[in-house]
Amino acid sequence: MRQAGRHFLQIPGPSSVPDRILRAISGQVIDHRGPAFGKVGAQALEGIKTIFKTQQNVVIYPSSGTGGWEAALVNVLSPGDRVLMFETGHFATLWKKIAEKLGLKPEFIEGDWRGGADPDQIEAYLAEDKNHEIKAVCVVHNETSTGGVSPIAAVRKAIDNAGHPALFMVDTISGLASIDYQHDEWGVDVTVSGSQKGLMLPPGLSFNAISAKAMAANASATLQRSYWDWADMVGPNKTGYFPYTPATNLLYGLNVAIEMLHEEGLENVFARHARHGMAARAAVRAWGLEVLCNKQGQESGVLTAVMVPEGHSADRFRATTLEHYDISLGNGLSKVADKVFRIGHLGDFNDLMLVATLAGVEMGLTKAKIPHNAGGVGAAMALLESTQIAAE
Amino acid sequence: MRQAGRHFLQIPGPSSVPDRILRAISGQVIDHRGPAFGKVGAQALEGIKTIFKTQQNVVIYPSSGTGGWEAALVNVLSPGDRVLMFETGHFATLWKKIAEKLGLKPEFIEGDWRGGADPDQIEAYLAEDKNHEIKAVCVVHNETSTGGVSPIAAVRKAIDNAGHPALFMVDTISGLASIDYQHDEWGVDVTVSGSQKGLMLPPGLSFNAISAKAMAANASATLQRSYWDWADMVGPNKTGYFPYTPATNLLYGLNVAIEMLHEEGLENVFARHARHGMAARAAVRAWGLEVLCNKQGQESGVLTAVMVPEGHSADRFRATTLEHYDISLGNGLSKVADKVFRIGHLGDFNDLMLVATLAGVEMGLTKAKIPHNAGGVGAAMALLESTQIAAE
Amino acid sequence: MRQAGRHFLQIPGPSSVPDRILRAISGQVIDHRGPAFGKVGAQALEGIKTIFKTQQNVVIYPSSGTGGWEAALVNVLSPGDRVLMFETGHFATLWKKIAEKLGLKPEFIEGDWRGGADPDQIEAYLAEDKNHEIKAVCVVHNETSTGGVSPIAAVRKAIDNAGHPALFMVDTISGLASIDYQHDEWGVDVTVSGSQKGLMLPPGLSFNAISAKAMAANASATLQRSYWDWADMVGPNKTGYFPYTPATNLLYGLNVAIEMLHEEGLENVFARHARHGMAARAAVRAWGLEVLCNKQGQESGVLTAVMVPEGHSADRFRATTLEHYDISLGNGLSKVADKVFRIGHLGDFNDLMLVATLAGVEMGLTKAKIPHNAGGVGAAMALLESTQIAAE
Amino acid sequence: MRQAGRHFLQIPGPSSVPDRILRAISGQVIDHRGPAFGKVGAQALEGIKTIFKTQQNVVIYPSSGTGGWEAALVNVLSPGDRVLMFETGHFATLWKKIAEKLGLKPEFIEGDWRGGADPDQIEAYLAEDKNHEIKAVCVVHNETSTGGVSPIAAVRKAIDNAGHPALFMVDTISGLASIDYQHDEWGVDVTVSGSQKGLMLPPGLSFNAISAKAMAANASATLQRSYWDWADMVGPNKTGYFPYTPATNLLYGLNVAIEMLHEEGLENVFARHARHGMAARAAVRAWGLEVLCNKQGQESGVLTAVMVPEGHSADRFRATTLEHYDISLGNGLSKVADKVFRIGHLGDFNDLMLVATLAGVEMGLTKAKIPHNAGGVGAAMALLESTQIAAE
Repeated sequence: MRQAGRHFLQIPGPSSVPDRILRAISGQVIDHRGPAFGKVGAQALEGIKTIFKTQQNVVIYPSSGTGGWEAALVNVLSPGDRVLMFETGHFATLWKKIAEKLGLKPEFIEGDWRGGADPDQIEAYLAEDKNHEIKAVCVVHNETSTGGVSPIAAVRKAIDNAGHPALFMVDTISGLASIDYQHDEWGVDVTVSGSQKGLMLPPGLSFNAISAKAMAANASATLQRSYWDWADMVGPNKTGYFPYTPATNLLYGLNVAIEMLHEEGLENVFARHARHGMAARAAVRAWGLEVLCNKQGQESGVLTAVMVPEGHSADRFRATTLEHYDISLGNGLSKVADKVFRIGHLGDFNDLMLVATLAGVEMGLTKAKIPHNAGGVGAAMALLESTQIAAE
Repeated sequence: MRQAGRHFLQIPGPSSVPDRILRAISGQVIDHRGPAFGKVGAQALEGIKTIFKTQQNVVIYPSSGTGGWEAALVNVLSPGDRVLMFETGHFATLWKKIAEKLGLKPEFIEGDWRGGADPDQIEAYLAEDKNHEIKAVCVVHNETSTGGVSPIAAVRKAIDNAGHPALFMVDTISGLASIDYQHDEWGVDVTVSGSQKGLMLPPGLSFNAISAKAMAANASATLQRSYWDWADMVGPNKTGYFPYTPATNLLYGLNVAIEMLHEEGLENVFARHARHGMAARAAVRAWGLEVLCNKQGQESGVLTAVMVPEGHSADRFRATTLEHYDISLGNGLSKVADKVFRIGHLGDFNDLMLVATLAGVEMGLTKAKIPHNAGGVGAAMALLESTQIAAE
Repeated sequence: MRQAGRHFLQIPGPSSVPDRILRAISGQVIDHRGPAFGKVGAQALEGIKTIFKTQQNVVIYPSSGTGGWEAALVNVLSPGDRVLMFETGHFATLWKKIAEKLGLKPEFIEGDWRGGADPDQIEAYLAEDKNHEIKAVCVVHNETSTGGVSPIAAVRKAIDNAGHPALFMVDTISGLASIDYQHDEWGVDVTVSGSQKGLMLPPGLSFNAISAKAMAANASATLQRSYWDWADMVGPNKTGYFPYTPATNLLYGLNVAIEMLHEEGLENVFARHARHGMAARAAVRAWGLEVLCNKQGQESGVLTAVMVPEGHSADRFRATTLEHYDISLGNGLSKVADKVFRIGHLGDFNDLMLVATLAGVEMGLTKAKIPHNAGGVGAAMALLESTQIAAE
Repeated sequence: MRQAGRHFLQIPGPSSVPDRILRAISGQVIDHRGPAFGKVGAQALEGIKTIFKTQQNVVIYPSSGTGGWEAALVNVLSPGDRVLMFETGHFATLWKKIAEKLGLKPEFIEGDWRGGADPDQIEAYLAEDKNHEIKAVCVVHNETSTGGVSPIAAVRKAIDNAGHPALFMVDTISGLASIDYQHDEWGVDVTVSGSQKGLMLPPGLSFNAISAKAMAANASATLQRSYWDWADMVGPNKTGYFPYTPATNLLYGLNVAIEMLHEEGLENVFARHARHGMAARAAVRAWGLEVLCNKQGQESGVLTAVMVPEGHSADRFRATTLEHYDISLGNGLSKVADKVFRIGHLGDFNDLMLVATLAGVEMGLTKAKIPHNAGGVGAAMALLESTQIAAE
């Protein structure tokens, strides 16, 4: 039977794509070597810099975010290079596995999946590396599997404190355009992101923002690469073109997305996500459940991962909720599989959509017979009422 | 500043158009005299009969619903004809004014705008008309200005009880495809409807479903008409064509709308609307406010009109709610202007959208400082949880 | 079997709708009483004036062009009024029939369907009407059934020469935004048009541009009217609103259409149509066939009606052409049924589309075994090459 | 100034995307881990097999065709492997450069860029490789830079004749779904293709069709790989899912594209392209110009590369044509830069679009003052008339 009304896509990405962007990506394809394309490309390449808060090069790949991870590594590293990574959760672990597949030697600072990366541990680790054999420090900014946010500026400071020359690489695939991110100011060397989260686009684009230091490293790095090679990108990019056929229609959408983000104002976008994160956590507390991220100040405005009580299945709950309330929630991944569900509250989103989302969770908890207190929706509404931003 | 997320269009029509229909109406125009069009037209003309539950002709006009009202009158009546109408609310009153403008003599049974038409009063009125000078009885099925539903089958019975030969004309502009309607079974002679409510289309089409008796009346009726004349329509309609250029793209959408309604199942569609009406009224009661329709069994599943406390402005409330929560609510019209607001819960709609809608109202009441109790959203959720339909 | 590639919709309207407009009309419906709508409506109502070249009111109906004809008549005339019309072709004849249906007394100056209206005959006719019983002169600007264009400024002069006070009403349904039209400058009282021709929109909107004299006539005219009554329109129109639910999504498209016309420049649009008309006629001459319009200077840039040789069927030719070359051509209507076919070259159209269209005709003539010389396409190309406009 | 009418995108890919596909890709994103997605994915993964004419695995990447090339190589080869490639033109050369970048040792059989790969030369070359050190033979099926088609079945036979165990890898990025291709029947081990040519989609997807032998080679091949690794793909693909976020909206489009190709019938699609190639070449001959591909039987139905006379600039001609006739033609690449232009006649294309395209070229030649005879368009029309396929 057809389900009436809108589906609520409340996974932590892909996020729902606004109609305006969907219409943009349905534009007719144009000649990627012709003069009209140059304008589209230049607008995208310049525009995306304002989102990464960088004056430096940002390259755009037709690929998933996974491709962006690989690109970051192969462009600046050489076989056997030691790399320091931090286990913030499932996606940090995946990035590490990719590093291993590519012939690098990642070293993993273990984490409990309940918060962001710890600058102190990173500083201590690097301080031990007297010979500066570690070539890169890789941190996930917004860990999509847990809802924990790493303090990127503090990690930068930690590296500096250790006096370590390693490149600093950050994955903000699910953080960009939802949580403040400052590629230049924070001294990040390579930032990885994707299209389908805060940028409100369908999946299919990934990004690398590149510092001068990283670009220099590219010249000597010997990991095998072709598709991902920045060196081939930056020349054509100067005039708005690409070395191979770009994903034209997603670039149409990207230009509109950037325009929409600036129409709202980036700082307003960040405040909106933060406030929705607070409201979601208020609901979780009211239900008597626990938020996976337990480090204060590191809870994400992008998603809220919720732990289900011992003996209950988060996946059965999600299936029930999808069936009865037509809402998709994110699943728990690897270590927390079936133990948590994730509520996405990112992208093109507002107060009433959040209430609907939390209502879907609350009614789903009842339907799936997961013990909880009522009143989560009410608690979130109270928070929203008490914190509404004037401008909104 | 751009408002993020989806606008909630919760007026009682136009209702939000599903993406599938928006995409259909964005199809390229075709030759309205060519063979491909004949299939589109025939599908629309046959399909719409299943929604009116009729085997008889339904004509489709490129016009607003207002045009459908005019068409119904001019096709079967002659200058100076007496017509019995019932004051269910603003739209019944508008229809009466049109009748006056067209040179008819409408007689109005006064109503209190808090329910549907009263069959007993109609029967009594007709019984007085010994000479059968009254040529038509006109009733609004779902009064969009009040949320009161008229018992159409009972009105039919009332006319029969009075032994009166008047034509029976019903406006179900906002009822069709949301509340059960049976043109043939209920013995209606002319049913008027429009595209932008339960049919989930943009505005721009109106409909007349026509009984054999009404079609016969067309031959002798002398009200001036050309654009609206059924006589010119029925011939070309037989093969799927129209006497003048039809609104091609809305017909594309109509075919998809009919398909979607049958995919869900008309009876499921009706049950869904009824249940959402109940939940909305539960919220209103919890707020300590009053629903305008006070006749039990006549409350609409399409919309809920809510009375604001004496001394408060419904329009200011609506403006506040639009500004702060990006939700459009319907205004009070003429007699109830500024005294009520109307919550639309019709068309392509589901449980979570209803919760979001009611949350917008509840938070808006607070923001606009209209005295009310909290807990309306919670009451609605409780009702939804306790009544969920298996199939949904 | 699916036919690959684009269908060529080369009837003289509806014309192919540009993607940009199709995307606009697929926007979500908004509250037609809310603040956002006021901007959409005001933009449309102001913008359309620039296309009619008028400073006066233009009303917009959700209706076909036929409705626009009816509106023009019922707003300014009274039952039994004498009206002078000119038989330019099928559509002039239809308008006359509508006048009759509405209780007017149209008088028809006969024409041969091979050109526009003759100002001299009109002047002579009016001069005879010493008592000024004729209340309106109705002329079709671009006769869609023949491709003959009436000299509107000259007709105005003819009326003035006759010293006659009749209202001057013009149908430019298929001329507007393709052929120069000046409502104010030419002293037209009511101009009728529609959305699906030069405005490049789907069908569903009609227009009346109204002079002050016509608006004054509205007050005393007694033809029955409600839906079409200008008096109800002009008030709400002042702030961008409508007295009944407008066809929101077509208004979105209208705003984009007006924007596109001005981006190209109206005078460029007119020159383009004129040049394409010349090229089409060059092709017809090369084929050794005859253009229906035989008055020099009155041939339309919108369409070219072509006479097929005696003993051949234009409709069979059109069916052959549609089947084999996926192109829709216009049929001959009433007096010229099956004797002519019509090539539309209007709206969003360019040189290569014209060549494709003429190639479809030329190859279709061969396929349908209609005697003709080859070389029509070549002749059109030669003309296009020799006349190309710098700016294009 | 806005140019009216449709742009003609007549480069040899991307080809114009049909509206039906554009509408499909504008559908809302869904959860790529949810049950609804599994159906979309399974339909795409099964459907694409029918286009490659294979029963074996086809993997789908979010990437350009360049990524598909890289994937083919890294999945089955090891550093330093010798690879035999054939210089059919620019794209064969690019593929060779990628092989070099990836650490392989490509050996290039030189070609004159005027036809497909030569099976005899390949057989002779392989016969010399007694120790079977050559691990793969790589051939471009439809060389997009020249319009030469390689006889793939004959190359297979050549490899077999030489008794050589090398893997056979074919790039049919611009041939698939336009020219017959049979992955299984022709014994190809890895076939590479992309979305933006015969598949009528925007760019953004690439494909590898994989034989059992190639899949076995994957297990032992040691080229560094992660994003492109087939081994991670085939598991999730079994149920319609992907190891990382797929390009959801392009998959929507792919499913529609496959449906459209089968509606037309693949053999009809091939015949259509072949016939259009013949007509284009007839035009070129009539102009007195030369087609770049001079091997009879190897001329492509996808594109026609045309040599401009000595002393004239193909690029200036293309710029003129774009400016005056709003048509994009393909440029000459590397060795033939500025010496040839390429006419794309692939994808969603029909007879009238071809005539329009050739008219753009013919009028552009005049405008750019490139010496040529008139009559190319006429010659193409004559060929189209004399060869029309009954079914079309």
